[in-house]
Amino acid sequence: MAYTLQQLADAVDGKLMGDGQLRIDRVAPIESADAGAISFVSSEKFARHLAGTQASAVIIPEALSEQSPVPAILVNKPRAAYARIAQLLYPPEKPPAGIHPTAVVHETASIGADCSIGAHTVIDENVSIGKGAVIEAGCSIGHDSSIGEATHLHANVSVYHDCRIGKQCIIHSSTVIGADGFGFEHDQGQWLKIPQIGGVVIGDNVEIGACSTVDRGAVNDTIIEEGVKLDNHIQIAHNVQVGAHTVMSNGVGVAGSTRIGKNCLIGGMTGIKDHIEIVDNVMITAMSLVSKSLTKPGSYSSNTPIDDTRTWRRNTARFRQLDELARRLIQLEKQINNSSSSC
Amino acid sequence: MAYTLQQLADAVDGKLMGDGQLRIDRVAPIESADAGAISFVSSEKFARHLAGTQASAVIIPEALSEQSPVPAILVNKPRAAYARIAQLLYPPEKPPAGIHPTAVVHETASIGADCSIGAHTVIDENVSIGKGAVIEAGCSIGHDSSIGEATHLHANVSVYHDCRIGKQCIIHSSTVIGADGFGFEHDQGQWLKIPQIGGVVIGDNVEIGACSTVDRGAVNDTIIEEGVKLDNHIQIAHNVQVGAHTVMSNGVGVAGSTRIGKNCLIGGMTGIKDHIEIVDNVMITAMSLVSKSLTKPGSYSSNTPIDDTRTWRRNTARFRQLDELARRLIQLEKQINNSSSSC
Amino acid sequence: MAYTLQQLADAVDGKLMGDGQLRIDRVAPIESADAGAISFVSSEKFARHLAGTQASAVIIPEALSEQSPVPAILVNKPRAAYARIAQLLYPPEKPPAGIHPTAVVHETASIGADCSIGAHTVIDENVSIGKGAVIEAGCSIGHDSSIGEATHLHANVSVYHDCRIGKQCIIHSSTVIGADGFGFEHDQGQWLKIPQIGGVVIGDNVEIGACSTVDRGAVNDTIIEEGVKLDNHIQIAHNVQVGAHTVMSNGVGVAGSTRIGKNCLIGGMTGIKDHIEIVDNVMITAMSLVSKSLTKPGSYSSNTPIDDTRTWRRNTARFRQLDELARRLIQLEKQINNSSSSC
Repeated sequence: MAYTLQQLADAVDGKLMGDGQLRIDRVAPIESADAGAISFVSSEKFARHLAGTQASAVIIPEALSEQSPVPAILVNKPRAAYARIAQLLYPPEKPPAGIHPTAVVHETASIGADCSIGAHTVIDENVSIGKGAVIEAGCSIGHDSSIGEATHLHANVSVYHDCRIGKQCIIHSSTVIGADGFGFEHDQGQWLKIPQIGGVVIGDNVEIGACSTVDRGAVNDTIIEEGVKLDNHIQIAHNVQVGAHTVMSNGVGVAGSTRIGKNCLIGGMTGIKDHIEIVDNVMITAMSLVSKSLTKPGSYSSNTPIDDTRTWRRNTARFRQLDELARRLIQLEKQINNSSSSC
Repeated sequence: MAYTLQQLADAVDGKLMGDGQLRIDRVAPIESADAGAISFVSSEKFARHLAGTQASAVIIPEALSEQSPVPAILVNKPRAAYARIAQLLYPPEKPPAGIHPTAVVHETASIGADCSIGAHTVIDENVSIGKGAVIEAGCSIGHDSSIGEATHLHANVSVYHDCRIGKQCIIHSSTVIGADGFGFEHDQGQWLKIPQIGGVVIGDNVEIGACSTVDRGAVNDTIIEEGVKLDNHIQIAHNVQVGAHTVMSNGVGVAGSTRIGKNCLIGGMTGIKDHIEIVDNVMITAMSLVSKSLTKPGSYSSNTPIDDTRTWRRNTARFRQLDELARRLIQLEKQINNSSSSC
Repeated sequence: MAYTLQQLADAVDGKLMGDGQLRIDRVAPIESADAGAISFVSSEKFARHLAGTQASAVIIPEALSEQSPVPAILVNKPRAAYARIAQLLYPPEKPPAGIHPTAVVHETASIGADCSIGAHTVIDENVSIGKGAVIEAGCSIGHDSSIGEATHLHANVSVYHDCRIGKQCIIHSSTVIGADGFGFEHDQGQWLKIPQIGGVVIGDNVEIGACSTVDRGAVNDTIIEEGVKLDNHIQIAHNVQVGAHTVMSNGVGVAGSTRIGKNCLIGGMTGIKDHIEIVDNVMITAMSLVSKSLTKPGSYSSNTPIDDTRTWRRNTARFRQLDELARRLIQLEKQINNSSSSC
C-alpha cells in the first residue's frame, strides 16, 4: 500500500509542506525511519529528533514547521493524524471471503455477503453474521447470537448463545463472551446455581483484547456500549454496564451490576466492586480498588508505592499500628495543649 | 417451560398464598416483572417494591405476606427458593446427544450414554466420559483423563492428560485444566524445568468460570473438592488444595502447595501465597494479599482505600515515611513524659 | 523409564554412595516415597525426614551422607540434581509424528521432519515449523510466523501472523501470541485504532503458561529473550522487552514499551507501568505496583499486609488521614521544641 504525501495530507485535512508527489509506503519511529517512511513528532518536547531524521516526511504541528528538514504534513493533532495515516497504509488484514469447508454452520444460520468463516469454526442455530464479518479459525458462536457487519473475531473466540455483538468490533483470541455470570445462593451447606438467563449486548466499534471475559446477565443483559476499548484479561461480570468510549487496560475486573459511565479511563489491574456507580469522565490509576461509587468526574487512586523491600517492611509493620499511632498522637496533642494552657 | 404456582410452591416446600393454578413461565426482577413472571423480595428492606409490582406472583418471607398485592409463595429463604424455581423454569441447555462427525475420538476412549460431543472436539486415548456429559465444540481432552456424569464443558476448554473431573461440574470456555505447574530450579545461569508429574482431581458439583487455570501437581495432585465455585481468570497453582464449597471471585491467584479450607469466600483479585494454610470458614475481601497462614475463621483484608489522586499522593508519600514518623512520635512521647515527670 | 542409581549419579555428576545397580523408576516426596523411588533432601533443615524414608535412594548434599539410611547420590545442589533426574525419568510426552488428517495446513507452509501437528490445527500461509515441533489440537498459527525446532504448543494456542517463536519453547493452552497491542488515540470523541504493525519475537527455551498474552508491537517487535519463564495469566504489552532468564509468576501485567532486565524474579499479580526500565537482577514481591524505573538490583515491594477486617478498617481509615497526621506530628514537635527551648 502506498500513497503520495499529497494524498495523505488530504486524508487528514493537513497542510502540505514540500513535495506532494513523494511516495510514502510505511510508518516508522522518527529515530529509525528511512526513505519511504513517514514519522510524527507530537510536540516541541520531541522536536530534537527532527534534525537528523531519515524519514521521507513527517507529521508535525504547525509550530514545528521551521524545524523540519524534510517534507511535512502540518496538523493540530499529529498523533491522531498518524493513526489515520497508519490505518491507510496498513488496512486491517482480511482473509478471503468464503466459508471454509471444515466450518460447521447450522442450516438456520444467516451468513452475510463477503464474510470469511475460518476453518473448524462452529456456528449454531439461528446465528446471524453481518456482511463482511470475519470469524477466524476455531471460533464457536452459540445459537441465536448475532455478529454485526465487518466485525472481526480472531481465532478461538467463544461466544455463547443469545449474545449480540455490534458492527466493526474486534475481538481477540481466547476471549469468551456470554459465559454464565457468577451467581450462587447458599442453602443447606451448598451453593445453588442461579440460572443466568440474560444475554450480552455489545455496541459498535468495540474492541476487546485476548483472554477477556464478558459474562451474560443474571436476568437482564450485560451491556458494553459503543466505542468501548477493553484490553487483555478483562473481566466484565453479569449485568455490568460500561458506558460509551470507556477504556480499560489489562486485567481490570468489574464485579456484578456495576455501572460505569462514558469516557472513563480505567488503569490496569484495577478492581471495581459490585453494585456501584461510576460517573462519566472518571480516571482511575492502575491497581486501584474501587470499593464505593464515584459520583464526581476526576482522577482516583489507591494502593501504596513501591519501595525497597526492607524499607517497605518497616513501613507496612507501622501500617498495622496506624490507628494506635494516630490515637497516641491525638493523646499527646491533648496532653501538650492542656499543659500549655495550665502554664 | 411453565409451572403452576402450586407446583412451584411444592418444589420449594413453600406455603401457597392465593391462586395455585396461576401459570408461571419465567422469573423477572420485582420492578420490571409482568404477567407470567414470578419475582422475589428477600426482606423488609425491599418490601416497598411489592406494592406496585406487576408480577403474577412473588416469593417472600412470611413476615411480608400482608404486604403482597399478588399471590405468593411464603418461605424462610426467598433467594434460595428463587434459585430453585429459576432452575425449574430454565433447565440447563443441553445439545442433542451424539458424537459430532467432526469430533476426533480415540478408539480406546469410553463415551457414556447420552453424551453430547461437539464439533471438532478431540478426545484422546483412554479418556472416559461419564453418561450424559456435554463436551462442546473445540475442546481437547488429554489421554487417561476422565469427565464425570452430566458434567458440561463449554467450547474450547483444554483438559490435559491424567486429570479427573467429577460429576455435574460446569467448566466454561478457554479454561485450562492440568497445564504444567510453574516449577523450575535455577542452575548454571538458567532454569531447569521440573517435570510436573502429578494430575488434577476435581470433585463433584464444581463450577469453574472462563479463562481460568488449574495446574497439575508437581508430584502429587492438585485438588479441588466438591461444590467449589471458581469465577473467571482464577489461577490454582500446582499442589494447591481447595476445600469443599469454597468460593473464589474473579481473578484470584493461589500459589503452589497452599491449602485452603472449606466454605471460604475469597474476594476478587486476591493473591494467596504459596505453602500457607487457610482454615475453614475464612472470608477475604477483594484484592487482598494473603502472605501468611490464616489460622482462625473470620474476615480478613489488606489494600488501601480509594481516594482522589491528589489526596492519595500526599498520603502515599507519607506512607513511605511511616516508620520514621512512628519513631518521631515515640520520641516525642518520651520527651513529654520525661519533662512532665521532671516538673 | 528406569535407570540404575549409577546411571543417575553419572547424569548429575554426583558421587554414588551404596548400591549402583539399584533400579530407580520414579521420583517421590521423601515422606511418601516407596521402593523404586528416589527422593531428595536439600539441606539440614529437612534432614529429619531421612531416617524413616522408604525411598530406594536419595539425592542429598555431602554433609548429610551419614544420616542417610539408604543409598544416595551426593551433590552440591540436590534440588537441581532432582530436576535433572526427574527429566530423565519423565521425558516430555510427545505425540507420534505426523500431520493429523483434520489439520488444515497451507500449501506454502513448511513443516519440519518429525513434527506432530494435531487435529483441527490451522497453519496459514508461509508458516515455518521447525523439526520435531509439536503443535497440539485446535491451535491456529497465522501467516508468516515461525515455530522453532522441538517447540511444543499445547491445545488451543493462538499465534497471530508474523510472530517468531524460538526453539525448545513450551506454550500452554489458551495462550495468545501476537494479538494487537492496546493502542488508540482519542480524536473527536472516539478512539482511533493505531495499527499494530510490529511482531513478536520469542527466544529459545522460553516457557509460557496457560491463558497468557504477548501482544505484537506497535511498530517494532515485542521481545521475550531466551530462557524466560512466564506463568499463567501473564500480560506482556506491545513493545515490551523481557530480558533473558527472567521469571514472572501468575498474573503479572507489564504495560507498553517497558524494558525488564535479565534474571529478574517478578512476584505474582504484580503490575508494571508502561515506558519504564527495570535493571537486571531485580526481585519484586507479589502484588506490587511498579510505577517507576528500578535502576538498582535488589528486592522491591509495595502493598499492605493482611489483617483481620476490623483492624484493617481502622488502619485504612487512618491511611486517609496520613498526611494530616504527619503534619500534626511535625507541628507538635515544633511546639515542644520551642517550649523546651523557651524553658
